[in-house]
Amino acid sequence: MAQRTEAPQILARCRELVRPALGRAVGQLHPWHAEITAFSLGWDGAGRDLPGAQGKGVRQALAVLGAEAVGAKAESAVLGAVAVELIHTFSLLHDDIMDGDETRRQRATAWRAYGTGPAVLAGDALFALAVQTLAGAPGGACAPAVRLLAGALNDLVHGQADDLLFESRPWTGPDAVQPHEYRRMAEQKTGALLGCATGLGAVLGGAGRSETDALTSAGRHLGVAFQAVDDVLGIWGDPEVTGKPVHSDLRRRKKTYPVLTALTAGGPAALRLAALLRTGEELDDHAARRAAGMVEEAGGRAAALAEADRQLERARACLESVALAPEPLADLLALLPYLSARLR
Amino acid sequence: MAQRTEAPQILARCRELVRPALGRAVGQLHPWHAEITAFSLGWDGAGRDLPGAQGKGVRQALAVLGAEAVGAKAESAVLGAVAVELIHTFSLLHDDIMDGDETRRQRATAWRAYGTGPAVLAGDALFALAVQTLAGAPGGACAPAVRLLAGALNDLVHGQADDLLFESRPWTGPDAVQPHEYRRMAEQKTGALLGCATGLGAVLGGAGRSETDALTSAGRHLGVAFQAVDDVLGIWGDPEVTGKPVHSDLRRRKKTYPVLTALTAGGPAALRLAALLRTGEELDDHAARRAAGMVEEAGGRAAALAEADRQLERARACLESVALAPEPLADLLALLPYLSARLR
Repeated sequence: MAQRTEAPQILARCRELVRPALGRAVGQLHPWHAEITAFSLGWDGAGRDLPGAQGKGVRQALAVLGAEAVGAKAESAVLGAVAVELIHTFSLLHDDIMDGDETRRQRATAWRAYGTGPAVLAGDALFALAVQTLAGAPGGACAPAVRLLAGALNDLVHGQADDLLFESRPWTGPDAVQPHEYRRMAEQKTGALLGCATGLGAVLGGAGRSETDALTSAGRHLGVAFQAVDDVLGIWGDPEVTGKPVHSDLRRRKKTYPVLTALTAGGPAALRLAALLRTGEELDDHAARRAAGMVEEAGGRAAALAEADRQLERARACLESVALAPEPLADLLALLPYLSARLR
Repeated sequence: MAQRTEAPQILARCRELVRPALGRAVGQLHPWHAEITAFSLGWDGAGRDLPGAQGKGVRQALAVLGAEAVGAKAESAVLGAVAVELIHTFSLLHDDIMDGDETRRQRATAWRAYGTGPAVLAGDALFALAVQTLAGAPGGACAPAVRLLAGALNDLVHGQADDLLFESRPWTGPDAVQPHEYRRMAEQKTGALLGCATGLGAVLGGAGRSETDALTSAGRHLGVAFQAVDDVLGIWGDPEVTGKPVHSDLRRRKKTYPVLTALTAGGPAALRLAALLRTGEELDDHAARRAAGMVEEAGGRAAALAEADRQLERARACLESVALAPEPLADLLALLPYLSARLR
């Protein structure tokens, strides 16, 4: 039996494969946008990686593995890998503006560093470049690839809108955000682009409809799993690892999956949690720690982790529902649990 | 000889043809984005036109006429017409944020009415919807249509970036913005989408390369002509018609074609103008009126109008370089002078 490749090696292999094309794509941007993009991607002025400032490159890896899984060469997915990384960067640029986030990966966000207008425009430029990149796909792959990307983009903006609107909804009562609404939002906001990545790999690798659909669905489930784990890390994550203060999502009163499931669980902890959150004040260290305890006591943490497991299981089932090349399939299966815990 | 159709009737016919499909497209948006889009398009809550609040619908007309000019039915261009109107609305939403503009067509801009974050996201949603609309083009038209749109989007963001960067460049000296740089910016910022409109009409109408290229180029020249005339209106336009204060572009110290050509003309008026602009203060009524006089005396107004005529002549030459259906060609030729004077 062949030795199993570890997830970090898989990610590194895909990153190395895609990196030159990503650099060339960014080089086509207006110099101003190339600079803002390099800053966002954690590159220095010469386009070299700054140590520790990059994302994991998950989306590009999913595109590459998607192509390999349908029996195509990794190279066939590079256009798609570049497109999804550009879209991911676009969405970080714009989301940080909408959410008012001032830091990302221990550095200033682009709108803080360059101004809101330039960050909006640089995001638009990345969006346009992603479409242009896929528009350059050879022959018959262009139309289905663009359709896949357009559907994901549509989901992405729907999910972001719902996430923003959740903020102004009450914690309890008939208008409270339900866990199933949160799952749909997470599937659109996070799952759509991951599903687009694996799906684009398949399409560019020349796959038929059933393989493409299976790989797309697997990526979407992975996205929801990731979001559930990310929500757990946003409350109980180690500040050294997450780069955010402890209980950060509770301090900011974010409506995340553990909190929403805790509130709907009923029981004394849920009631105390609802009373605390309804006060409307900023939660200090003490209150945030108490709230975290209540979420855990009401079963919110366990529910989020169970949801992540359930979604990973579904992703696995999608991958096993069609005939895929064994080695790339093994790589995808190795990535699933790793990514759902480490994606950001 | 058939009676010549007047430009307003041509625009109205195209608007009526496209309106139902545009309404359906907007209806696919997240309700929040549909509301912001309806506001931007001058529609009421039920999606009906508010009197006097709409744009002229120039881009959709160019798409429809492009298809008719290559011998196709007007209906074949509807997808393209919808896509360019969505992109136009997207660019107004985002440009108003970048430029800090608070009113448009005598109403609050979307970011003033709904907030910056929601306006950014609604723009993104329109961008995504435009791509998705074209991705639904039948058969072999999808790939070339998306390529045309992607190229225009890339130009659009390049042009907007240059326009923003021009603001911080000096009025005179080696780093001053040259008229040819301004023309290139205008071709990208304004011409690209107009050229995309006529070109999409041709592509969706099944035209070959030479007709598509000719129609695309004609639209681009029309865009530069329009920008030159718009610059003249921004200084000398009637506030009743433009909805902006008299000499508005001079008060705001915008680097427009009449000013840039005046400054490069040399002579005493150009020197006085440069001295006035270099003071860096906000121009009051008196100073703005003096500046307008200097721009005119230095030949800036005449140069802008001559540039508009030159670009219209080129647009006409493009249209006459290929064999087009006579009636739609007559309509396009009737629109050119009308649009270059009235486009916004």
